[in-house]
Amino acid sequence: MTGAVARKSFGSDNHAGTHPAVMRAIVEANAGDAIPYGGDPWTAQAVEEIQQRSGAQGGVYLVLNGSGANVLGLGLLLDRHEAVICAESAHIHTDECGAAERVLGTKLLTVPAPNGKITPELIATRLAGRGDEHFAQPGVVAVTQSTEFGTCYSLEELRAIKEFSAANGLRVYLDGARLANAVAYLGCAIADIAACADVLSFGGTKNGAMGVEAVIVMQPGDAVNARYLRKQQGQLSSKMRFLGAQFGALLHDDLWLGNAAHANAMAARLASGLAEISGVEVVYPVQSDVVFARLDRECIATLQRDWTFHVWDEGQSVVRWMTGFDTQESDVDAFLKDIAAAVDAVRA
Amino acid sequence: MTGAVARKSFGSDNHAGTHPAVMRAIVEANAGDAIPYGGDPWTAQAVEEIQQRSGAQGGVYLVLNGSGANVLGLGLLLDRHEAVICAESAHIHTDECGAAERVLGTKLLTVPAPNGKITPELIATRLAGRGDEHFAQPGVVAVTQSTEFGTCYSLEELRAIKEFSAANGLRVYLDGARLANAVAYLGCAIADIAACADVLSFGGTKNGAMGVEAVIVMQPGDAVNARYLRKQQGQLSSKMRFLGAQFGALLHDDLWLGNAAHANAMAARLASGLAEISGVEVVYPVQSDVVFARLDRECIATLQRDWTFHVWDEGQSVVRWMTGFDTQESDVDAFLKDIAAAVDAVRA
Amino acid sequence: MTGAVARKSFGSDNHAGTHPAVMRAIVEANAGDAIPYGGDPWTAQAVEEIQQRSGAQGGVYLVLNGSGANVLGLGLLLDRHEAVICAESAHIHTDECGAAERVLGTKLLTVPAPNGKITPELIATRLAGRGDEHFAQPGVVAVTQSTEFGTCYSLEELRAIKEFSAANGLRVYLDGARLANAVAYLGCAIADIAACADVLSFGGTKNGAMGVEAVIVMQPGDAVNARYLRKQQGQLSSKMRFLGAQFGALLHDDLWLGNAAHANAMAARLASGLAEISGVEVVYPVQSDVVFARLDRECIATLQRDWTFHVWDEGQSVVRWMTGFDTQESDVDAFLKDIAAAVDAVRA
Amino acid sequence: MTGAVARKSFGSDNHAGTHPAVMRAIVEANAGDAIPYGGDPWTAQAVEEIQQRSGAQGGVYLVLNGSGANVLGLGLLLDRHEAVICAESAHIHTDECGAAERVLGTKLLTVPAPNGKITPELIATRLAGRGDEHFAQPGVVAVTQSTEFGTCYSLEELRAIKEFSAANGLRVYLDGARLANAVAYLGCAIADIAACADVLSFGGTKNGAMGVEAVIVMQPGDAVNARYLRKQQGQLSSKMRFLGAQFGALLHDDLWLGNAAHANAMAARLASGLAEISGVEVVYPVQSDVVFARLDRECIATLQRDWTFHVWDEGQSVVRWMTGFDTQESDVDAFLKDIAAAVDAVRA
Repeated sequence: MTGAVARKSFGSDNHAGTHPAVMRAIVEANAGDAIPYGGDPWTAQAVEEIQQRSGAQGGVYLVLNGSGANVLGLGLLLDRHEAVICAESAHIHTDECGAAERVLGTKLLTVPAPNGKITPELIATRLAGRGDEHFAQPGVVAVTQSTEFGTCYSLEELRAIKEFSAANGLRVYLDGARLANAVAYLGCAIADIAACADVLSFGGTKNGAMGVEAVIVMQPGDAVNARYLRKQQGQLSSKMRFLGAQFGALLHDDLWLGNAAHANAMAARLASGLAEISGVEVVYPVQSDVVFARLDRECIATLQRDWTFHVWDEGQSVVRWMTGFDTQESDVDAFLKDIAAAVDAVRA
Repeated sequence: MTGAVARKSFGSDNHAGTHPAVMRAIVEANAGDAIPYGGDPWTAQAVEEIQQRSGAQGGVYLVLNGSGANVLGLGLLLDRHEAVICAESAHIHTDECGAAERVLGTKLLTVPAPNGKITPELIATRLAGRGDEHFAQPGVVAVTQSTEFGTCYSLEELRAIKEFSAANGLRVYLDGARLANAVAYLGCAIADIAACADVLSFGGTKNGAMGVEAVIVMQPGDAVNARYLRKQQGQLSSKMRFLGAQFGALLHDDLWLGNAAHANAMAARLASGLAEISGVEVVYPVQSDVVFARLDRECIATLQRDWTFHVWDEGQSVVRWMTGFDTQESDVDAFLKDIAAAVDAVRA
Repeated sequence: MTGAVARKSFGSDNHAGTHPAVMRAIVEANAGDAIPYGGDPWTAQAVEEIQQRSGAQGGVYLVLNGSGANVLGLGLLLDRHEAVICAESAHIHTDECGAAERVLGTKLLTVPAPNGKITPELIATRLAGRGDEHFAQPGVVAVTQSTEFGTCYSLEELRAIKEFSAANGLRVYLDGARLANAVAYLGCAIADIAACADVLSFGGTKNGAMGVEAVIVMQPGDAVNARYLRKQQGQLSSKMRFLGAQFGALLHDDLWLGNAAHANAMAARLASGLAEISGVEVVYPVQSDVVFARLDRECIATLQRDWTFHVWDEGQSVVRWMTGFDTQESDVDAFLKDIAAAVDAVRA
Repeated sequence: MTGAVARKSFGSDNHAGTHPAVMRAIVEANAGDAIPYGGDPWTAQAVEEIQQRSGAQGGVYLVLNGSGANVLGLGLLLDRHEAVICAESAHIHTDECGAAERVLGTKLLTVPAPNGKITPELIATRLAGRGDEHFAQPGVVAVTQSTEFGTCYSLEELRAIKEFSAANGLRVYLDGARLANAVAYLGCAIADIAACADVLSFGGTKNGAMGVEAVIVMQPGDAVNARYLRKQQGQLSSKMRFLGAQFGALLHDDLWLGNAAHANAMAARLASGLAEISGVEVVYPVQSDVVFARLDRECIATLQRDWTFHVWDEGQSVVRWMTGFDTQESDVDAFLKDIAAAVDAVRA
C-alpha cells in the first residue's frame, strides 16, 4: 500500500507497527464475549502483573495513549488550584498542544533542564511564591524517564527528587512513555523507579504495543477518583480486553524489557558508528533508544531524501534519530553508511 | 480463559469482540513502518470513504471511543459560553460521568423526551432565556440516532429539528454511536442523516470494530480547530493506521451495514418471540438492536443466573436486551426459551 | 438622574442602593493607605466577627458577589471529578449562566423540589449510580437558605440533610445570599444554620451592602486552597478594606438582622394585604422578603406600567414581588392599593 | 484603626484608598432604586464615555478587578484551543495564580522581554509549530501598557505588534491596568493605544477608583459572548451603578489623566532624587508610576523598618517603589532623605 514508509524509519518509535507477539495476543483475545470497560480477564491479569512489578498499592489503570496517561496521572495528584513544575523540554509542555492546561486547568512552571533532567536545585527555584495567593502554587513535580532527550535519571537522581519533593509538600509524577528503555538502561526493576514517584505512566505503545499505556498509582489515597477521571477524560476503552491483551503479551517472558533493550542497543550501535564519522556530533548522552546529533544542514537534506527522521532544532542543525523494537542492525548499518557518504559528499 | 462470558451476552453491543474481517485488516495493516498520527494510507482511505458517504465538507476525524467523539463533536460547535440542549436520556447526560461539563465546561439543558427523541417543540421550551446573561445560552442541540432507547428518528423528524435549529441559531450535533443501526432501519444513506446535522459521530466500536469512531464535520468552518481539540482531548492515536484499518474493513463491501442490519434483525426476532410470551411487555418500539422489556422481578433474577444483561430501571422492573453483529438466531431462540420458562415458573 | 427607578421597586433586593450606615463605613475606611488583598484591619475585624457568629473553624473569605461566592464555596468541597445535587430551582442551576459548569467543570444533578426545598429523600434519588464510572458522582449537596421561592428550611430540615449527607459521604454547601432573612425568620443564630453546612455563603449585597459576600468554611481541612481559588476565580479584591468595612457596618449592632427582619416584615405586610384581595393567590409560604403571587395577566400588565417587578412564570401567570431593607410600609400600602384597583378594573 | 499604613506607602498603587471625587460620586449614586446588572444610568454614561474615548465598536464591559478583566478580555479573543503569547514578566503569567489557565484552559507561551516589552521578533519565536497539532497554537498576543516594569510601549512599538499580529492571524489583548499612566506618559489619546489592540482593559482601581476596570472591545464581532462570559466568570456586579459612578468621576474633567500624570510625576521626582544618591541604581527607564532600584541589602532592611514597599528580586537586591494619585511631593522627599541616610549609614 502506498504511503507506508519504505526504509526503516528513524523518525520515532511510533512509526513501527505492533510486535508480532502482541498482535497474536490481540487476535487470541478476540474470542467470544467479554465484560467491557475492564471487567475482562485480560485486563485483570495485566493490571495484576503491573501492580506486582511496580509495587503499586493504588491500582493500575489502562488508558489509550500517552497524553491521556499524563493528563490522568497529573490530575490524580493535583489539588484543584495547583500547578506543575517540569522541565522546559517536558513532553507535557512542548508536545501535547496544551492538554494539561486545557483539561486540568493547571499551569506548568518550567525550569531549564540540561539533558532534559530536573534536579532539586531547579525545583527549588520555583518555590519562592508559595503561600502567596498571587502566585501559582506548585503541587506536583513532573519528570520524564527516559527523558525527551534520551537521557536517563539514575536512581539516585530520582530518589533525590522524590525526597526533596516529599520534604516540600510536592508530589511526583513520572512520565514513563519510555519507562522500559530506562529500566533496560539502568538494569533496575520497574519498582525501583516507581518507588520514586507517586503516580507514573508505563508506556506500551512505543515498546511494541498497538496502543496502550498504564497509569500506576502508588498509594491508595491517590486513586479515589482514578476511574471517574479516566472516564471523563475519554480514556476508558469499552472493549478493554484488547488493551489488557497487549500488556499481557509485553509482560510475558519480559518481552517489554527485551524490546527496550534491543532498541537501546540499536541506538548505541548508531552512536558508536557515528563516533567514527567526523562532522557528526552526538549532543546528548545516548542512554535509551534515541540519538540527537548535530551535522551539516546539507547532509541533513541529503539524508532526508531516503530516510525518515525529524530535524529537532533547525537553528542548531540538530536531528533526532530514534530506534525501535524492530530496528535491525542492518538498518543501522545502512543508515550509518549513508550518513558517512553524505558527510563525505559535503566535505568534497 | 475464565472471566469471559459463557453464553452470548445480551448486555451490550460492546460485549462482543472484533469482527473477523476487521481483525484481519488490523493484522494486515501491521506491515512495516507508517507515518503516525494519521499520516498513513489506511487512515487516509477511511477518511476519504466516510467523507464520500456522508457528504462532509469539513473533514473526518478518527477518535478512540464514543465519549471522546461526543466531547470533540460538541466542542467543535459550541461557542465558549454556550450550553447544549439534549434529551434527559441522552448518553452525554447520563452515561459519560459528566465529561462534557468537565472537559468543555458546558451546561446540558435537558428536556424530557418520550422514546428518547426530542422535537422542535421540546427544544423551544429551552429558549426562553436567550439574550439574558443570567441564563445558560443554548448553542447546540444534541440528538442520538439511533437513540438510547433503540428508537430511530425518521428523516422527517431529523429535518424538522435541523430546520428549527438553523432558524433559531442553534447547531445540531448527532451522536451516532449506533448510526449504522439507524441507517439499516431507515433504509437511507449516511448522507441523508448527516445532512440533518452540523457535526455527527459514526460509531465503529458497537458495529464490529475493536475501538474506533469517526467525527464527521459537515462544514469546513466548523473544523478549524478539530485537529487541535482532538489532541488536547486525548483522542489522537499515534499508530492511527490501526484505527483507519478498522474503518476500512467496515466500509469494504458495506460490512458496517450488514452488521447493523443483522443486529437489528436479531432484536426484531427477539421482540417477535416476546410477543408470544404473556407477562413480558416491550416498552419502546424496536427499531434497532435493542429491546427494552418489563417483566416480573423474579423472572429477571432467574434469567440473570444464566444470561448477561442490564436491569435498566429497577423501580419499573425494566430490562435492556441488546443484540450485536455476532448474535446468532440460535442465541435469540435459546434466550427466548429461557424467558418463557422463567415466566411460566413464576406463574406456576 | 434619569433611568433610576421612580417608585420603590419590588423587582429585587438588589434594586436598592447601599444602607446609609454601610455607606458611612465605606467613607470612613477611606483614610490613608492600607495593605491590600485583605491585609487591612477592616477585613480582619469583619472576618473575625463572622467567624465568631458562625462558629467557622476554616476561615471566612470575602468575595465580590453571589455567583462568585457559590463557585468558590462549591469548589472548596468538590473533588475534581464530582457533581452537585441541587434543586431544579437552585440559583446555581437557573441564574448563573452555567458558571459552576464553566469554572468548576462540575455537573449539576437536579431534583424537583416543592417550595424550593430539597430533602434526604430527594437527594437519595440521585445516588443510584455511585461507584459506577459511567455516572456523574455526586460529592456535594447544595441548598439555598432562604430559598429562591422565599421559603426557609427549618433547622430540623437542615439537620436532616446534613446528617443524611454525612452518612452518605456528601458535603453540604449552603447558598446564603439571603441567609440573613432566614435567620430573622427562624429566630435562630447564624451558627445554628452554619452547623448544618460544610461551607456556606453569607450575603451582604441583598442585605444593604454595596457589594460583598462572605464564604464561610466550617472545617479547616476544607480551606486549604480557599485563598488560591478566590484569586483564580477573580474574587480577590485589591482594596479589600472597602469590603471589610461593609460587613463591619452590617454586623455592628446587628444591622444585618434588623435589615432582614424589616424586609421580611414588609413581605409579610404585603402578603397580609393580598389576603384581602380576591383574585390574587400567594403561591409559596411567605417566610422571607418575597411574595410569589398568581393573578390575572391583565392585572400584571396594568401594574407593570407603574411598578417594577418580575413576571416569574409567564405560563402560570405568577409574579415575584420582593421587598428590601429600605422598603417602606407606605410603599407596600401604595402597591397594595394599586393591586386591588387593578384587580377591580379587570373584574369590572 | 491599627493596621493601617502609617507613612505613605510606596508598596503599590492599590495601597491608596479612593479618590475623594470618586467617593463623592459613589455616595451620590446611592439615591433610590436602580436597575441592577448595568441597567442604570451611571453605567450607561460611563460605558458611553469610554466608548467615545477609545473608539470601541464592540462595547465596554465594567468588571470588578484586574484579573477579572484580563481573563474576560483574553477569553473574548481566544478560540477554544488557542494559547497566548506574552512576556515572561506579564501579570497574567506571574501574578494571577494561574487564573488564565484555570478559567480559560489556555496555555501561556512566554518570551523573555527586556524592560517588559515584547516585539514582533519575540512573538515570531513562538510561531514555529503552527499547524502542527502537537504544539499549542498561539491565537492571542498579550501586552501590558504600562508594563509590569513601569516602562511604556511607544505607539510605534504597539503598532508594529498589531500589524505583525494581524499579518500572522493573531489577535492583540492589551492589559491596561495602568493604561492611564501610559496615556499620560505618551501624551496620546486612549484611542491611539486602543487602535493597537483588539480588546483592552482600562484600569480604574490603581487610578483612584475603589474597584472597577473596563474591558473595551474594539470590534463588534468579538463581543458576541462578552456579557455571558462576564457573568460566568463572576465579574457581573448586581449594584453596578457603583461601578459606573466610579468611572463617571474619573472621566469627569479628565480626573483619570490628572491622577496618572501626578503619580508619574512623583515617580519621576523619586528617580530624579535617586540620581543624586550614589549606591542606588535605577534599573528600568522610569516612564510611569514606579521606580525599580538596586541597592544594598542592608539599606533595604533599614528602609523597610519605616517604609512600606516590595523587594522585587531578592537575589538581585532590587526593590519596587511605586507612587500613586495621592503620593505627595513631601512623601517623596522624606523617602529620599531616608534612602540617602540609609546608604550613608551602610557606607560609614
